[in-house]
Amino acid sequence: MEKINVLIIGGGASGLQAAISAKTNHPDKSVVVVRKEDKVLVPCGIPYIFGSLHTSDKNILPDKMLTDIGVEIKIAEVTGVDVEKNFCTLANKEKLYFDKLIFATGSIPTIPKWLKGGDLENVFYIPKDKQYLDEMFIKLKPLKKVITIGAGFIGVEMSDEMNKAGWDVTLVELESSILSRAFDKEFGDKAEELLKSRGVKVITNKGVKEIIGKDGKVSKVILSTGEELEADAVVLSLGYVPNTELAKKSGIELNKFGFIKTCEYMRVDNCSTDIFAVGDCAEKRDFLTRKINTTMLASTACAEARVAGMSLYELSPCKSFSGTIAIYDTAIGDTAFGTAGIIEAKAKEEHFSVVVGSFTGMDKHPGTLEGMHEQTVKLIVAADCGMIIGGEVYGGSSVGELTNSIGFLIQSHANIKTLLTAQIGTHPLLTGSPAAYPLIKAAEIVAKKLKC
Amino acid sequence: MEKINVLIIGGGASGLQAAISAKTNHPDKSVVVVRKEDKVLVPCGIPYIFGSLHTSDKNILPDKMLTDIGVEIKIAEVTGVDVEKNFCTLANKEKLYFDKLIFATGSIPTIPKWLKGGDLENVFYIPKDKQYLDEMFIKLKPLKKVITIGAGFIGVEMSDEMNKAGWDVTLVELESSILSRAFDKEFGDKAEELLKSRGVKVITNKGVKEIIGKDGKVSKVILSTGEELEADAVVLSLGYVPNTELAKKSGIELNKFGFIKTCEYMRVDNCSTDIFAVGDCAEKRDFLTRKINTTMLASTACAEARVAGMSLYELSPCKSFSGTIAIYDTAIGDTAFGTAGIIEAKAKEEHFSVVVGSFTGMDKHPGTLEGMHEQTVKLIVAADCGMIIGGEVYGGSSVGELTNSIGFLIQSHANIKTLLTAQIGTHPLLTGSPAAYPLIKAAEIVAKKLKC
Repeated sequence: MEKINVLIIGGGASGLQAAISAKTNHPDKSVVVVRKEDKVLVPCGIPYIFGSLHTSDKNILPDKMLTDIGVEIKIAEVTGVDVEKNFCTLANKEKLYFDKLIFATGSIPTIPKWLKGGDLENVFYIPKDKQYLDEMFIKLKPLKKVITIGAGFIGVEMSDEMNKAGWDVTLVELESSILSRAFDKEFGDKAEELLKSRGVKVITNKGVKEIIGKDGKVSKVILSTGEELEADAVVLSLGYVPNTELAKKSGIELNKFGFIKTCEYMRVDNCSTDIFAVGDCAEKRDFLTRKINTTMLASTACAEARVAGMSLYELSPCKSFSGTIAIYDTAIGDTAFGTAGIIEAKAKEEHFSVVVGSFTGMDKHPGTLEGMHEQTVKLIVAADCGMIIGGEVYGGSSVGELTNSIGFLIQSHANIKTLLTAQIGTHPLLTGSPAAYPLIKAAEIVAKKLKC
Repeated sequence: MEKINVLIIGGGASGLQAAISAKTNHPDKSVVVVRKEDKVLVPCGIPYIFGSLHTSDKNILPDKMLTDIGVEIKIAEVTGVDVEKNFCTLANKEKLYFDKLIFATGSIPTIPKWLKGGDLENVFYIPKDKQYLDEMFIKLKPLKKVITIGAGFIGVEMSDEMNKAGWDVTLVELESSILSRAFDKEFGDKAEELLKSRGVKVITNKGVKEIIGKDGKVSKVILSTGEELEADAVVLSLGYVPNTELAKKSGIELNKFGFIKTCEYMRVDNCSTDIFAVGDCAEKRDFLTRKINTTMLASTACAEARVAGMSLYELSPCKSFSGTIAIYDTAIGDTAFGTAGIIEAKAKEEHFSVVVGSFTGMDKHPGTLEGMHEQTVKLIVAADCGMIIGGEVYGGSSVGELTNSIGFLIQSHANIKTLLTAQIGTHPLLTGSPAAYPLIKAAEIVAKKLKC
């Protein structure tokens, strides 16, 4: 078989983006994506399958994005990689030779082996697997009481969407507030309040001890306090781990969390410069703490994939990956939450001396306009130099892009003072008012504290 | 009377913001706003009075924003300013002595003296004057056919809101596309198409020659081509001029467009360092061309007012005003348009060598989600150095904040390459997908052209 110039293993968000970047930056090179799945799900869209979308068929990453630009898709399972002789072996023994290889094998749900009853019927996980989720959806349909365990983004969105679709949902979280890795407690409490007002029962500060079955099917969940919750089904969303079995057995070095060790150009540390890894399977460092980071986000994965795609055949110092900022959002009904960089609690834990400022205003002006939503911006700023290192936002549907603004400020190492004189655009229907724009008002509060 | 520490003339957006900044930065100083109006309108909300809001009473800048922090409001007309002896004279001959004075006298509509029939009954302007607009609204109510002249933001928004409220509206514009100062033609054409689909008749490439009256009231509008349009009322929105009569007669130097000459700290050029001017009445330079700029925006006005408020008693080189970026948005129904910095046509006119890139995607993902809106981002980039100097956006309600992201990139002198590796946050309900986020895709297109 002819040698492939750029071979990418995995067709999720990072694989897709790596292929697009590889091909658009190197139009003369052949680019092939090899993946197991016939159809690939939009990862962040998965919770919406169970509510707003009604079916996984509306949540498919279009192959057209690849085939239109000349990327070839091969549906097959890679069973081995020879990173020295530059070839992959497929399940059918076929060999694919390559110049450059990108691992984009993604992640799989964390399966808590310690959890008794975790193997009962109607205990579900949320893998990025269409067939599994389609079967899960069918099995869930006749059931009523669902316990979701783990209140990260996926757990919260699944709970809200399933509640919306008519299931009786109870969300259980070990921490004292939901979404606690991404938001400070005041934001988590707001999200919890909102979820409750929409009908989701929320239990915090309690773990799950055991799932009890009857005739092999889920019947009860026992909490760490001994309390019992009746249940027809359990959805576990306890996070994800990198899918790096293939890499490991190919002799690639993993870090202590199981991620493929990579550099800032996404090249695999213990290989030749032909082997790359991007997305959930690849090692990432925190932009601020510079520690190994385990946050997995499709958006970060795509940024890494763009870096890899541009760095395959030549490097540029201005095109390296700067570390994970962790910018993400969620929505509960018409209320959205966004976060970028570090939160206050984490900053303190990591020994950053910070000053914070919050301001609550409106996302339209005057506030009498229909559809106006309250908007809160909190900024986390380094006390000694004024560098903006984090932001959290609560508001209406403009929160996603507002959070990205904060993300750009963090990435440009902006000083809080730049916001004091910054120009913004405002419009009655689209933003807060120019004299009470929450991002700038929050900056003013921080600046005042810094001066005192 | 006791001496006032900081006196501000004018209670519009810039006066309000100047007072807030003066007081919050100098809590021990007395701050007084003197203004003619009993109630002040939210300037950008004015078009919505005639449609969505139904009344000007829902479009009032709350005095509470000032009184809550200890700013005093004085309703009075200033008839003279002695900029050497530091006092103002009011219409009732009272004198107000001050340490520092900020002119925030705003702007008034351009009245085309050359236009025959401009003084007929039912010819209206759009001043920021509650009483005038309330009377205009009452007079308009029984009328049917309205001709709006001038397709800038206010003309477009007035036309759309009045059409929405049931008037038969025809918008007339001399240029070949609407919103042509703020957007390149492809965006203006989209806005025109949208306005038409909503029922507004749009005539471009034609000027207005004369307004014909019958019994002293508007009956027809004659276009430059000789065409006649039947009309019950005419709304002229031909821009605004700075309201600087008071400044002029107080001996303050104005520039050739009638703005008060100021420096980057908003201090008036030919006065002592006690006299400031901000907002529509103050001179502004373009961030990029460095030419005198005549763009008037409440948001820019507020940025200038913040600078003045911080610079009253001491200066800081990191708190000066950097020149007008001109970031603004408008919305037609659920479609929004945003612009920041320079547009392509203007860049070429001003001898910037530029490369542009446009990408059209979606503002939600997957695109099957309800409420998904197409989203286009166009970037204008300096060809020799890659600096981002402008952006235009078309999409749904997240356009305002997305435009502000581009504004921050321009203000931080960001290079287009920084977007190639930039991290963003994405969410199904809030943004485009990570692999097809229009801002980054547009940047990739520009970068590719720059490389070729």
